[in-house]
Amino acid sequence: MRTGIATVCLSGTLEEKLRAAAKAGFGGVEIFETDLITSPLSPEDVRALADDQGLGLDLYQPFRDLDSVPDELYRANLRRAEAKFKLMGRLGIDTILVCSNVATASIDDDALRAEQLHGLAKLAADYGVKVAYEALAWGTYVNDFEHAWRLVADADHPNLGTCLDTFHILSRGWDTEPIEQIPGEKIFFVQVADAPKLSMDVLSWSRHYRVFPGEGQFDLPKFLGHVARTGYNGPVSLEVFNDTFRQADVERTAVDAMRSLIWLEERTAKHLAVSDAARLADAAGRDADDDAAAPTPAQLAAASRAYPMPLTTLPQVAPPSGVNFAEIKSAEGAAATAELERLLSQLGFEPHGEHRTKPVNLWTLGDARIILNRQQARGVDPAISALGFDVENSVAAVARAVQLKAAPVPRTSQANEEVLQAVQAPDGTEVFLCQDALWVNEFGSGVASAEHAPSAAPFASAHIDHINLAQPWQHYDEAVLFYSSVLALSPQPSQDVSSPTGLVRSQVMQAGAGGESAVRLVLNLAPWIQADTVRGTVRDTFQEHIAIAVPDLVETARACRRRGLPFLPIPENYYEDLDARYGLSPDFLATLRELDLLYDRDADGEFLHFYTATVGSVFFEVVQRIGGYEGFGAPNAPIRHAAQHDAQLAGHPGGHR
Amino acid sequence: MRTGIATVCLSGTLEEKLRAAAKAGFGGVEIFETDLITSPLSPEDVRALADDQGLGLDLYQPFRDLDSVPDELYRANLRRAEAKFKLMGRLGIDTILVCSNVATASIDDDALRAEQLHGLAKLAADYGVKVAYEALAWGTYVNDFEHAWRLVADADHPNLGTCLDTFHILSRGWDTEPIEQIPGEKIFFVQVADAPKLSMDVLSWSRHYRVFPGEGQFDLPKFLGHVARTGYNGPVSLEVFNDTFRQADVERTAVDAMRSLIWLEERTAKHLAVSDAARLADAAGRDADDDAAAPTPAQLAAASRAYPMPLTTLPQVAPPSGVNFAEIKSAEGAAATAELERLLSQLGFEPHGEHRTKPVNLWTLGDARIILNRQQARGVDPAISALGFDVENSVAAVARAVQLKAAPVPRTSQANEEVLQAVQAPDGTEVFLCQDALWVNEFGSGVASAEHAPSAAPFASAHIDHINLAQPWQHYDEAVLFYSSVLALSPQPSQDVSSPTGLVRSQVMQAGAGGESAVRLVLNLAPWIQADTVRGTVRDTFQEHIAIAVPDLVETARACRRRGLPFLPIPENYYEDLDARYGLSPDFLATLRELDLLYDRDADGEFLHFYTATVGSVFFEVVQRIGGYEGFGAPNAPIRHAAQHDAQLAGHPGGHR
Repeated sequence: MRTGIATVCLSGTLEEKLRAAAKAGFGGVEIFETDLITSPLSPEDVRALADDQGLGLDLYQPFRDLDSVPDELYRANLRRAEAKFKLMGRLGIDTILVCSNVATASIDDDALRAEQLHGLAKLAADYGVKVAYEALAWGTYVNDFEHAWRLVADADHPNLGTCLDTFHILSRGWDTEPIEQIPGEKIFFVQVADAPKLSMDVLSWSRHYRVFPGEGQFDLPKFLGHVARTGYNGPVSLEVFNDTFRQADVERTAVDAMRSLIWLEERTAKHLAVSDAARLADAAGRDADDDAAAPTPAQLAAASRAYPMPLTTLPQVAPPSGVNFAEIKSAEGAAATAELERLLSQLGFEPHGEHRTKPVNLWTLGDARIILNRQQARGVDPAISALGFDVENSVAAVARAVQLKAAPVPRTSQANEEVLQAVQAPDGTEVFLCQDALWVNEFGSGVASAEHAPSAAPFASAHIDHINLAQPWQHYDEAVLFYSSVLALSPQPSQDVSSPTGLVRSQVMQAGAGGESAVRLVLNLAPWIQADTVRGTVRDTFQEHIAIAVPDLVETARACRRRGLPFLPIPENYYEDLDARYGLSPDFLATLRELDLLYDRDADGEFLHFYTATVGSVFFEVVQRIGGYEGFGAPNAPIRHAAQHDAQLAGHPGGHR
Repeated sequence: MRTGIATVCLSGTLEEKLRAAAKAGFGGVEIFETDLITSPLSPEDVRALADDQGLGLDLYQPFRDLDSVPDELYRANLRRAEAKFKLMGRLGIDTILVCSNVATASIDDDALRAEQLHGLAKLAADYGVKVAYEALAWGTYVNDFEHAWRLVADADHPNLGTCLDTFHILSRGWDTEPIEQIPGEKIFFVQVADAPKLSMDVLSWSRHYRVFPGEGQFDLPKFLGHVARTGYNGPVSLEVFNDTFRQADVERTAVDAMRSLIWLEERTAKHLAVSDAARLADAAGRDADDDAAAPTPAQLAAASRAYPMPLTTLPQVAPPSGVNFAEIKSAEGAAATAELERLLSQLGFEPHGEHRTKPVNLWTLGDARIILNRQQARGVDPAISALGFDVENSVAAVARAVQLKAAPVPRTSQANEEVLQAVQAPDGTEVFLCQDALWVNEFGSGVASAEHAPSAAPFASAHIDHINLAQPWQHYDEAVLFYSSVLALSPQPSQDVSSPTGLVRSQVMQAGAGGESAVRLVLNLAPWIQADTVRGTVRDTFQEHIAIAVPDLVETARACRRRGLPFLPIPENYYEDLDARYGLSPDFLATLRELDLLYDRDADGEFLHFYTATVGSVFFEVVQRIGGYEGFGAPNAPIRHAAQHDAQLAGHPGGHR
């Protein structure tokens, strides 16, 4: 599949955009007119730069407000178009995007429009230019791709075709099946963008909230499947207007963008494999397969080759089956490091000593493994620095990640040590892909392996329930795509949680459900607090944590209390509200109160949890899931944020009473 | 008018919120339940704190999902309510907000609802509690204030009344006239919020985009006029959910909030004065006055006293008639200061020497006066530090500003010097309210006064056309309200402009139109760039500028060029596009090209302008308005941003070629 990206997706100057697109591996770019007009580079310079970078210049865009106008204005428009055709010659671009009129359209007459499009195409032909006509979702008269295509068919000129843009089609909810009726050679260009499903005016939605494929909620694989079936084999190019991407680092955004197209190619091949099989079965009079079924490797390969548009696929991986470990960086000899070790002891974790060759220690509680790395963390120290996930085949998983443009983490391993492979997540966390936990034998006396030295009951079944990472706002969408494409975690509906310093957007990425086999990663987008504008040094929303599941929370809490664990204090008002809401038994409520426990309930079960004090940017949560409860105690999140804020204001984030 | 604010409007802990509300002068607060539940303060502590601060606790809210439910759930809801009534007794709050059911409503039966509301009110009466029932805009069955009021009337219990919330009523577009049919004593509470007119789902709109009165587009004075006519005399209380306010400094937000209610009081009195006069005239069979007419002082005073809800009014001021001066701070002896002085000389400004007693210099070009203050600016130096506006009566203008909670700027003046009065704008700019420009005589030889020493033609008519200030994102809405309430500038529709580092939201605040009598202030909300995430030190969007209008831009530009002024270089591609768009005469286009001039045109006229290099965070623009052109060359703004970005990347923000 030829990949492309519109320069408007990226921040910076035109030169920065072109270099970043080439570096990320795009086949070509669309030159967004404003980016050229504001550039000090001449058209010849731009052409030479693109050549030099091995980047195609695939489209010039947009040309606005051509059609549905009186003759005098139409002639002025042709003059304007001719200047652009000349410019395109200098740039070496052969296709221009013409979008349906939104500003000056005054005549609603399809015959006139077809005539005006024909006239433009005729003029374009003189300059060797092809015109791709697109219906904008908010076009005055033309806002539906089928209408645009009918006009192109009626205008009937070899230099005139249509451009399909997923946003303009899917935002309006148009049926995409009729795409297959358009001959592939009359589709001159395909633009793709994803978007969250928002109920707002389509223009604002388009201008500010588009995201890259896989970061929103549009069914793009189905769309692109229809396109592939037409025989189209041109660029599939991103056109994403997004307020955040416009500000973020251009090279990172380009990589994120490229990842989204690789993801889209793979998903499209999968969709086609399943859908082709279903159509065949249907034609043979058998029951059609379920469209959601996983295709076999053979079906996938066949689908990838079945159409003129080649669809590269990646090594397939199953979602991770567990959290192998979490690593915390904490500076050697720092008071915080001693505090962190004390916290782990008080939680019941057992130390397993030093790694053979690296400055790291292992602590375990049942299957929950935490590595303390005695290097200083970036930013606030200590901080969560790495996560390990259990995968079936780490070689395949790493190969997939690297093909998805994840940056490998350089590692040195000594002879006889497990070779662990890791890639870097958008927030800098190192993500390890682990096939087993044999590496634990490299610590201390070498008997810490879960297989060899299980923790005493009742903690044998303790494990990491979830990990909560704070995400920088510039890389939030990127993180969602990273974890869903690289790790095959599924994004759950996101939620806003109030805190004393603003709303925290919370996005759960999950694989599996229930017990130890579920992998749950919570990405928190913290508010844009600026320390100089809010009094005090408020950092609570940037805290991150590791949650440990235990079989009996009350018993664990009591044991922790005996060991002197500093609990996050929960206000009395909370228990009164809990009582008002649920009418809990007085004994149970007294226990919750006594132990600073939090409680939640839904239709499927109950949830008990508590939090520890914070050290640096890290704290711990201990949870017990009862019945089929699959949430995270979201109603209690404001309590947690406020208590952490109070503890910080009081100068002891430890939260000791 | 009794003023109030819901704790949810403000950031921080409950204690911080209460203190900030009291300090800003609010009469009372609504306790938002989450703020209490997350607080370590007991209800008794909260009550004592409020007492201590002289703050009323006027409402407990919200109580959700009471009505339209089966009997068993209703009984559980009553039990839940009873716990809250007890809690309210401890807090000393006598009114609870009950909002229409959105989560558990399953029975659409008005008789049942009235019965359930009656039952609740009966229980409330046992605890001395009054219930204010409100229709949420997205209530399952009840989402219209008239419906809510009918239910309250049907339920017919002295402890049951209704709560009117501007957002829930105006967001749905309900007619507000019927408010006058509700007896004032049955309105138990009034909540106000403004909002920009957005076309999006009403729940998201409500949760994230509410603003304080005067910062949005709802007609709140008309709404509150209807309420006043019912005889209502209870709290008028802000309930504003806003993502930014939740993060911003709590004390500043509280002041901004208080200012919005003072503004609303005044506007309501004005609305009533005009509307009462029109009704009287109507009743007398005469032509009703135009609702937009300005009320006479007598009408205004009468309206303020006519209803039980007293409406304080402020000293009335006309919008400013001109920009008196602009001041730039620039550190004494710094290279940038010399560069700035050179820039002013090259622009044609004449120096008028030192102030008698202060470390400031005056420069003028016709009526454009610029003061160079040799103190270092906060942040990037030099920077625009003060603006003077021409007002009719500076004493009244300052009194008004102070009543609107603007912070006065402390000033020392020597004997025989003009006493200039100033207040601080939200971004820290000092705003001077000037009755004349006699102060210029305090500079140099004392002959710089515009009256005494006019600049040579053609610059006699030169003046400050507009000033463009970068606004911190936390104070953008606050700035709009500040300039509209304190200075009587009118907000124009806002616009987004693209720059290499993100979209810049641009908001024009204006008084008058055409020539020298127009006052135009442009507030720019720059993207949230974080220096550490974008390579290079990109600060262009934070630049601010002063635009000087001249009668002949081409002549001025040539003179400036001769004097060696560093122009911001405009890319050649811009002129090619200009030609494609407008087909300008080759001579004219050549002149534009030669002089780095920009051009715009609309239905009313034409606009010519150019920019200088930037020094620190300041640059200048020179403009010529031809015909009735009232814009700012917005299509050229991306060119300017990109050229400034290029100049900065190249390391010479001066923009020299």
